[in-house]
Amino acid sequence: MAEPLRILAFAGSLRRASFNRGLLRAAIEPPPEGAIVEVFDLAPIPLYNEDVRAQGYPPPVAAFRAAIAAAGALLIASPENNYSVPGVLKNAIDWASRPPDQPLRAKPVAIMGASNGGFGTVRGQAALRVVLQAVESYAMPKPELFVSRAQDLSDSDGNLTDAATREKVRAHVAALIAWAARLRAGV
Amino acid sequence: MAEPLRILAFAGSLRRASFNRGLLRAAIEPPPEGAIVEVFDLAPIPLYNEDVRAQGYPPPVAAFRAAIAAAGALLIASPENNYSVPGVLKNAIDWASRPPDQPLRAKPVAIMGASNGGFGTVRGQAALRVVLQAVESYAMPKPELFVSRAQDLSDSDGNLTDAATREKVRAHVAALIAWAARLRAGV
Amino acid sequence: MAEPLRILAFAGSLRRASFNRGLLRAAIEPPPEGAIVEVFDLAPIPLYNEDVRAQGYPPPVAAFRAAIAAAGALLIASPENNYSVPGVLKNAIDWASRPPDQPLRAKPVAIMGASNGGFGTVRGQAALRVVLQAVESYAMPKPELFVSRAQDLSDSDGNLTDAATREKVRAHVAALIAWAARLRAGV
Amino acid sequence: MAEPLRILAFAGSLRRASFNRGLLRAAIEPPPEGAIVEVFDLAPIPLYNEDVRAQGYPPPVAAFRAAIAAAGALLIASPENNYSVPGVLKNAIDWASRPPDQPLRAKPVAIMGASNGGFGTVRGQAALRVVLQAVESYAMPKPELFVSRAQDLSDSDGNLTDAATREKVRAHVAALIAWAARLRAGV
Repeated sequence: MAEPLRILAFAGSLRRASFNRGLLRAAIEPPPEGAIVEVFDLAPIPLYNEDVRAQGYPPPVAAFRAAIAAAGALLIASPENNYSVPGVLKNAIDWASRPPDQPLRAKPVAIMGASNGGFGTVRGQAALRVVLQAVESYAMPKPELFVSRAQDLSDSDGNLTDAATREKVRAHVAALIAWAARLRAGV
Repeated sequence: MAEPLRILAFAGSLRRASFNRGLLRAAIEPPPEGAIVEVFDLAPIPLYNEDVRAQGYPPPVAAFRAAIAAAGALLIASPENNYSVPGVLKNAIDWASRPPDQPLRAKPVAIMGASNGGFGTVRGQAALRVVLQAVESYAMPKPELFVSRAQDLSDSDGNLTDAATREKVRAHVAALIAWAARLRAGV
Repeated sequence: MAEPLRILAFAGSLRRASFNRGLLRAAIEPPPEGAIVEVFDLAPIPLYNEDVRAQGYPPPVAAFRAAIAAAGALLIASPENNYSVPGVLKNAIDWASRPPDQPLRAKPVAIMGASNGGFGTVRGQAALRVVLQAVESYAMPKPELFVSRAQDLSDSDGNLTDAATREKVRAHVAALIAWAARLRAGV
Repeated sequence: MAEPLRILAFAGSLRRASFNRGLLRAAIEPPPEGAIVEVFDLAPIPLYNEDVRAQGYPPPVAAFRAAIAAAGALLIASPENNYSVPGVLKNAIDWASRPPDQPLRAKPVAIMGASNGGFGTVRGQAALRVVLQAVESYAMPKPELFVSRAQDLSDSDGNLTDAATREKVRAHVAALIAWAARLRAGV
């Protein structure tokens, strides 16, 4: 039997009732077959500062980098802010992308996103794909998951309540597991 | 005589000896004719959190928003991180873009950037333009200023020492002043 | 009384019953106040070839370049093909962007687009904005016009029949006229 | 012994002495080990027109689609036009992306590009990656190959004469062969 894939999941929003944090919960409750998912909270990660880095990674950053390194794949759920990646998420990736090791390198990644509006974070996901290519992650080309009008699909705590969308989230994780397996088998 | 243009300048890097902070210094020392430039430091701005925002803007964010609102134009100098906008800079813009007023709206903006490598932040500037359009800023279409191999043009404190590049920075600010004047006159 | 603005309009689709050609017709029938709109058909423009250009612009290209040069503003309606600008439209812009004169330079431009799906050409418009900045056109930052599910808003000839969307198209043209006037007045 | 990889190569420029066509020649002369490379000329491909497509693919388009379908990987060399993909190249991809079969789907692809200027087609390659993701091709994340100041590295027929750059082109093809093998083995 194959070893379960360790997936590190994180959200691009710090809001408690964020729809995107809700997407992550939908992805892991119940746990997907064939994977163990850990959720990492980006809130304690400070603003990137190269002078700070030269003194050593701050503990929350070191923890984030170690968690990425230990994972076999990443699952990112993020809002779109101003047609692009939220600063919060980009800042975390900036920390993770730096030497000596570069833990994002060759890491399979799936992206998903939820928005209040009708465009389901398409622009934000496109901007995130550029960043992931820069750090040589292996972003899953398809399927894509764009959740529009998330407030109609979620409760007031940001829990994804719409059954069809929950199914899509589950299928997205299954596709990530298959993408990671394909890349690993081919090494 | 025309009133001088108030320019708010900020850098996408927090590094003390940042080449991009050096670009800003080259832009304002000596002060450009027809403008008063204030530099804003993004270091104290916290990570964007919508729950925090709902309680009121944190003081450094409120100060940043007020400084933008009071300015007639913006001058941004930024590195490119992972082919895109640094999280530090994107995070500050995310805060600035939110209601009730949206101070970035209709604001003339000039972008410049310095990199160690040979591509002079072209990708980062392209990603920043997307964000500026999202917030309805008026990014100056041309000229563009891409400073490659900045370490060869700067001293160890990040001061821009290359005379030709200093001239380009000065011309860039002059072009921003003209762009802002054109947009203002046409209202 | 101000002279009417001459707008050159063209569509990124060659399909006879194209929704985007329908958007253009909605923009000009009846003619907008304060503008004279001419529609240019991109069908006769050949594939860009620098060796051909060195011999002189082919007649349809020369006509396109002259029409741009004579216009005070451009109105582009385009589908999104593969998350980007249709090759047909990009090819026409490539021809128009070349020396000796560069007629797209400093030209006010409004973009709109219609799609069958739910995302209303957001990605295609973003890609087109990059191109317009490259050629130093002045793309109107906002408003934006994204028409989703165009087949439900149009007849089988591609005529835009939905009254609310027709109103948005008209408002978009009015915004372009204001944007062009502002830029012209500020020269 | 493994079967050689069939690579279909094409260039985004129709210019006879194109530096990018020169890159392709450098890639295949002498033939790379482990691959058979065929070069396809995009010149005969007409402008995309959905009404034409509804009548059946024109012969040059059908040939292009069949060549893609028969290939195990694609190698694209392209200039950057106006910070984006040349219309000529985008137009060919638009044709290739359409039903009933979608031959670009799941196809490993390597991108390279040469420019006269200093930025080596970085923006054009970024724009092309967006398109390749849209059609679900598997663009090789790294290495990337950006050839700047191509006129100094080529003869007047566009032949790549610089030995170091020729070596990079050869390494790029070898990386594509490995990327395709990895994806194929993991199926």
